[in-house]
Amino acid sequence: MTENHSAERPGLSRRGMLGLAGAAVGAGVVGFGAGVAVDRAVSAGAIGSATTYPFYGEHQAGITTPVQDRLHFAAFDVAPGLDRAGLIELLQDWTTAAARMTQGRPAGTYGPASGPADAPPDDTGEALDLPPGGLTLTFGFGPSLFVDATGADRFGIASRRPAALVDLPHFPGDALVEALTGGDLCVQACSEDPQVAVHAIRNLSRIAFGRAAIRWSQLGFGRTSSTSRSQATPRNLFGFKDGTANIKSEDESVVRDQVWAAAGDGARWMAGGSYLVARKIRMVIETWDRQQLGEQERIVGRDKGEGAPLSGGTEFTEPNFLALAKTGGTKIDPDSHVRLAHPTMNDGAQLLRRGYNFVDGNDELGRLNAGLFFIAFQRDPRTQFIPIQSRLAKNDLMNEYLKHVGSAIFAVPPGAREGSYVGAGLFS
Amino acid sequence: MTENHSAERPGLSRRGMLGLAGAAVGAGVVGFGAGVAVDRAVSAGAIGSATTYPFYGEHQAGITTPVQDRLHFAAFDVAPGLDRAGLIELLQDWTTAAARMTQGRPAGTYGPASGPADAPPDDTGEALDLPPGGLTLTFGFGPSLFVDATGADRFGIASRRPAALVDLPHFPGDALVEALTGGDLCVQACSEDPQVAVHAIRNLSRIAFGRAAIRWSQLGFGRTSSTSRSQATPRNLFGFKDGTANIKSEDESVVRDQVWAAAGDGARWMAGGSYLVARKIRMVIETWDRQQLGEQERIVGRDKGEGAPLSGGTEFTEPNFLALAKTGGTKIDPDSHVRLAHPTMNDGAQLLRRGYNFVDGNDELGRLNAGLFFIAFQRDPRTQFIPIQSRLAKNDLMNEYLKHVGSAIFAVPPGAREGSYVGAGLFS
Repeated sequence: MTENHSAERPGLSRRGMLGLAGAAVGAGVVGFGAGVAVDRAVSAGAIGSATTYPFYGEHQAGITTPVQDRLHFAAFDVAPGLDRAGLIELLQDWTTAAARMTQGRPAGTYGPASGPADAPPDDTGEALDLPPGGLTLTFGFGPSLFVDATGADRFGIASRRPAALVDLPHFPGDALVEALTGGDLCVQACSEDPQVAVHAIRNLSRIAFGRAAIRWSQLGFGRTSSTSRSQATPRNLFGFKDGTANIKSEDESVVRDQVWAAAGDGARWMAGGSYLVARKIRMVIETWDRQQLGEQERIVGRDKGEGAPLSGGTEFTEPNFLALAKTGGTKIDPDSHVRLAHPTMNDGAQLLRRGYNFVDGNDELGRLNAGLFFIAFQRDPRTQFIPIQSRLAKNDLMNEYLKHVGSAIFAVPPGAREGSYVGAGLFS
Repeated sequence: MTENHSAERPGLSRRGMLGLAGAAVGAGVVGFGAGVAVDRAVSAGAIGSATTYPFYGEHQAGITTPVQDRLHFAAFDVAPGLDRAGLIELLQDWTTAAARMTQGRPAGTYGPASGPADAPPDDTGEALDLPPGGLTLTFGFGPSLFVDATGADRFGIASRRPAALVDLPHFPGDALVEALTGGDLCVQACSEDPQVAVHAIRNLSRIAFGRAAIRWSQLGFGRTSSTSRSQATPRNLFGFKDGTANIKSEDESVVRDQVWAAAGDGARWMAGGSYLVARKIRMVIETWDRQQLGEQERIVGRDKGEGAPLSGGTEFTEPNFLALAKTGGTKIDPDSHVRLAHPTMNDGAQLLRRGYNFVDGNDELGRLNAGLFFIAFQRDPRTQFIPIQSRLAKNDLMNEYLKHVGSAIFAVPPGAREGSYVGAGLFS
């Protein structure tokens, strides 16, 4: 079963190989396990399915793909010494490894065929027996890749920065932490199995050794939006269904109009790509939990059990913002989250949300450090995320229970053609 | 479908109710969703199974129970003002909620029947549609519950502290962080679905409001040991199978001799209980990943692909520590992890391990903050964990890649009888 390294796809660059070897000095023992099975059968009791999504294609996977349950997201900064050729080589190496891992294979050949006999294994091994669980790896480019903090055009791509890849403005109430914000590159890893997602980010980080390093990263669970009508609407850590009105992959015309960048939008190399906005939103859940149910529902604008709008009906009934309550005023509060985020309040703008819940331990007062890692894809943040968030940040009743601590924006290029690499259009 | 609160089991204490209400001041809106379904059907696409384990019984669940894939572990400190009656009431409230949640029900009644009309909901809601996924909740008592740091016997239980509940000694290489160490009480929540485990810890923490607060907590995934022969051996973040030689629930005589405390052991109230040692072990994975495969295998004493001992055979072949290598010396290094941890090197002592992998983001150098959250159950730490860890801490080749940053020990009482509460024997 040992895989032949001279396979149909190019292997890692020589630099990638050296990155893996790093400064390793072996202790002189060479004892590779004989016949290590790399594409081994799935172990009994594995929790992920054998589902795979194609890595190559018109669009990158991990956007309209039905949301998997687990996330490991990483923002990277490129190393100071990296040049244009080095950046391209990194993207090529990442493409090679991502195309393998998303198909349930190790990041590289697992065994001595991959390099000198004293090299470390090309794959770290913790996902060897695990099915891919629908693993997708989605790559993006941050504004600082085009022009760095000193104003330098290190990679000769400044003129190709898409106009839609704006620096996000400051929103009212933002409490951003620099170490959780920005990034030159991003990788979103989603799978049904967290160990598979973690394995992918770890191995991509390892391949990038000396060329790019993780700036910040986030694990998430329990997807907070569905992107397909085949999925039930999950709940966020406020206990409410989240994403009822999300863009679904089945809404083809909405996806075309609101998710995918088009050739005529400005940057031709982004046609078929999208723009990703990530926000780390801490929820003040202890305070929220002490609010009475009716107040929670007023803030959200939906009932908690079913997720129906307070104007009546069931989960997928359109809210009626004009419906009057017997006690006076409208049934749905004008400053409720559902109303302010609704397309009719935002010139029809929508987002394809793909966020996750997170719990990062607790703070020194014993409160869970928990919240929502918000991810949204869109065709143009200038007409979608930014105006929607501006409105929410000013008036949303929910703001009392939210703190935005991290923020980033990335241009997510179209999918790679087989034989090419992710983002190739930016360099041609 | 709204549940009748005057049910077969006692509800929360009045104090527990007040804890839930906390300092909440509602905004005057009372609008509970009509007919909220509390035991609602499982949503499509849920990842956990409908498996439930009995909460009441001879032993607490979550010890020999086949290891679920996800963990949320929390250590609590009791509030300064809590007295004996208050501690008992807390344990009663926790028992009531745990018995409900482990059976797939909300922590408390979900709706106005549970209290005053302006009370917050008794359950935070994020697991309302989720199956329990084999949720177990396992409670323990730390040494500081018996005698606090000032030497005070706050709850009148100092004389009942089991001799086996020792303070763990300092081990060579320990780099313990105070904020990740110790605790008066612990709750181990395990489920197939992290959202279910998180929901349980959050609601138990909420019920404890004003009586106990989380001191530290840990999420984990990808169990690092199996406790049943029906489970495949999982891999840790070194990429190796972990727990091949773990105690399995099917080994009844081993479980009886090495896991459960007996009436003759000293503390009669602990008969049928066990002792839990938790260690947060950060792995230096970037350095590990640069070691050649043969060196990794020498350190572990097993091959990476199959998990067989380096003396030959397959995963479950007993290692032969005397087998000689052609190149001189033994095939298995005398200081390898497998040899030093083996029962034959430890007077026959074994542990029932139930640890999890963790990734807590990354450090400022871009390295994943990753490792193993080690959990082991045993009959007596004085003859099991402590001597085994002493030997490993001195000589294990693996130490170069490990850093123990958190540590705790808890007496885990036997299971509660229905109508009673966890730990009742300590107070009778």
